[in-house]
Amino acid sequence: MSSTHELSYTVTFGDCDPAGIVFYPNIYGWFDRCFHDWLARFGGHAAICAEVGAMGAGLMSATADFRRPMRPNDTIRVAMTIRDWGRKSLTLDYEIRLGDTVTATGTEIRGLFKPAENGIVAGNMSELKDAIARHEG
Amino acid sequence: MSSTHELSYTVTFGDCDPAGIVFYPNIYGWFDRCFHDWLARFGGHAAICAEVGAMGAGLMSATADFRRPMRPNDTIRVAMTIRDWGRKSLTLDYEIRLGDTVTATGTEIRGLFKPAENGIVAGNMSELKDAIARHEG
Amino acid sequence: MSSTHELSYTVTFGDCDPAGIVFYPNIYGWFDRCFHDWLARFGGHAAICAEVGAMGAGLMSATADFRRPMRPNDTIRVAMTIRDWGRKSLTLDYEIRLGDTVTATGTEIRGLFKPAENGIVAGNMSELKDAIARHEG
Amino acid sequence: MSSTHELSYTVTFGDCDPAGIVFYPNIYGWFDRCFHDWLARFGGHAAICAEVGAMGAGLMSATADFRRPMRPNDTIRVAMTIRDWGRKSLTLDYEIRLGDTVTATGTEIRGLFKPAENGIVAGNMSELKDAIARHEG
Repeated sequence: MSSTHELSYTVTFGDCDPAGIVFYPNIYGWFDRCFHDWLARFGGHAAICAEVGAMGAGLMSATADFRRPMRPNDTIRVAMTIRDWGRKSLTLDYEIRLGDTVTATGTEIRGLFKPAENGIVAGNMSELKDAIARHEG
Repeated sequence: MSSTHELSYTVTFGDCDPAGIVFYPNIYGWFDRCFHDWLARFGGHAAICAEVGAMGAGLMSATADFRRPMRPNDTIRVAMTIRDWGRKSLTLDYEIRLGDTVTATGTEIRGLFKPAENGIVAGNMSELKDAIARHEG
Repeated sequence: MSSTHELSYTVTFGDCDPAGIVFYPNIYGWFDRCFHDWLARFGGHAAICAEVGAMGAGLMSATADFRRPMRPNDTIRVAMTIRDWGRKSLTLDYEIRLGDTVTATGTEIRGLFKPAENGIVAGNMSELKDAIARHEG
Repeated sequence: MSSTHELSYTVTFGDCDPAGIVFYPNIYGWFDRCFHDWLARFGGHAAICAEVGAMGAGLMSATADFRRPMRPNDTIRVAMTIRDWGRKSLTLDYEIRLGDTVTATGTEIRGLFKPAENGIVAGNMSELKDAIARHEG
């Protein structure tokens, strides 16, 4: 996996459940952490969203496969790869490793959430892409 | 959706993120809550797992579609349906509603995690099914 | 304890840690849940804060005593009492019961957080009290 | 504050609430993270507790003062100091800094939870102290 962004995280006691392994929703939380850590390079989620008039670069769907349990004090690597900039969506792949072992993989599909009269609409994803490009420049 | 188990939950401020809507990993947490609430009818996860010599009825994969944002003080209904008792897995479908609106749907595939010499192995799912049947009787 | 507001909550598997009991920060989360559930009677935290030009009715300090462990599937009662409306703070007492047993008690001191040039300042708490009184009327 | 143990943590989007600042129960979670990270030096919580026949080195009470808001992407330092090894309790002080600014302080009082006929009893804290000393040696 050719990574766009990667971070290190140490699993803590409170991330784990009575079975002694990571409570699985937290794994999605680490995908989300990696995405926001990547955006931090370009000013961060709040600043970029303000720039393009969005409430957030939020989730339309997410999936994950859990291959090996993770436990307290495991220091993992979370890697994110951009798979596709779609017209109304951004598809991101994730891989979590503990040493050489892949412990989880997953995918997020995000939209650019914009406020609308009756709730939220998906904006053009090119706006987010362009905003990031401006800060990369 | 013909529900196997259903519960009510009120979204709280702390479930939500700086965009003002539910932080998406929590939605998987509500799927998991519904599963454990269902098991509580049969003695609960800890007792059933002890009966069959398992560490947990844990996740192999999970997926979700997020259709409408949920906000603080929304009282939602979380419904779970058993889709399939497989040989080594249990597939569960979820639907979350706010009033008549479906806000999220998802699927969990769970295995019966058993301790093994070098980590965890997936046990026969029929053991969980049979244990539940005994408590239902 | 003469309660101002009370709610019921069922502890779930994911609230608990590898010791099999509630991960203690979640207990503060239930105090916070009770506070926001109380504000929901008056339009909710977001609406009230907008009315008085505050970012939030946030925490200045909090304390808790943990008397009995709580476990998955325990249905608890969380009760909040207003101890004191101060000039710049609001002091709230909490008590959590499982049946007749008090499992935790605690206190939150909240301020009315207002945006300022260099961060956040504490506003006059009477503004929050008056806003609540208007909605109670 | 003369620190016994210290760690670095980056606040993420999902740690924050609709007011855009850290949801306060998470701050206790960082105290707990620091404590467990310290125990990891001596084999970790699970191994040490097994050694002394305890379920956990759990909380009897905790308190915190929140001095400055923390926000997404803030990289903080969490420092723990042992204040007192009591007969039946361990008192730990915490300080969180963002750069030179103290953002939160707090105290945890922990007991050595041992299984008993009717629930949990507090064991002699010297057992935990001695187990740590053995691993330090």
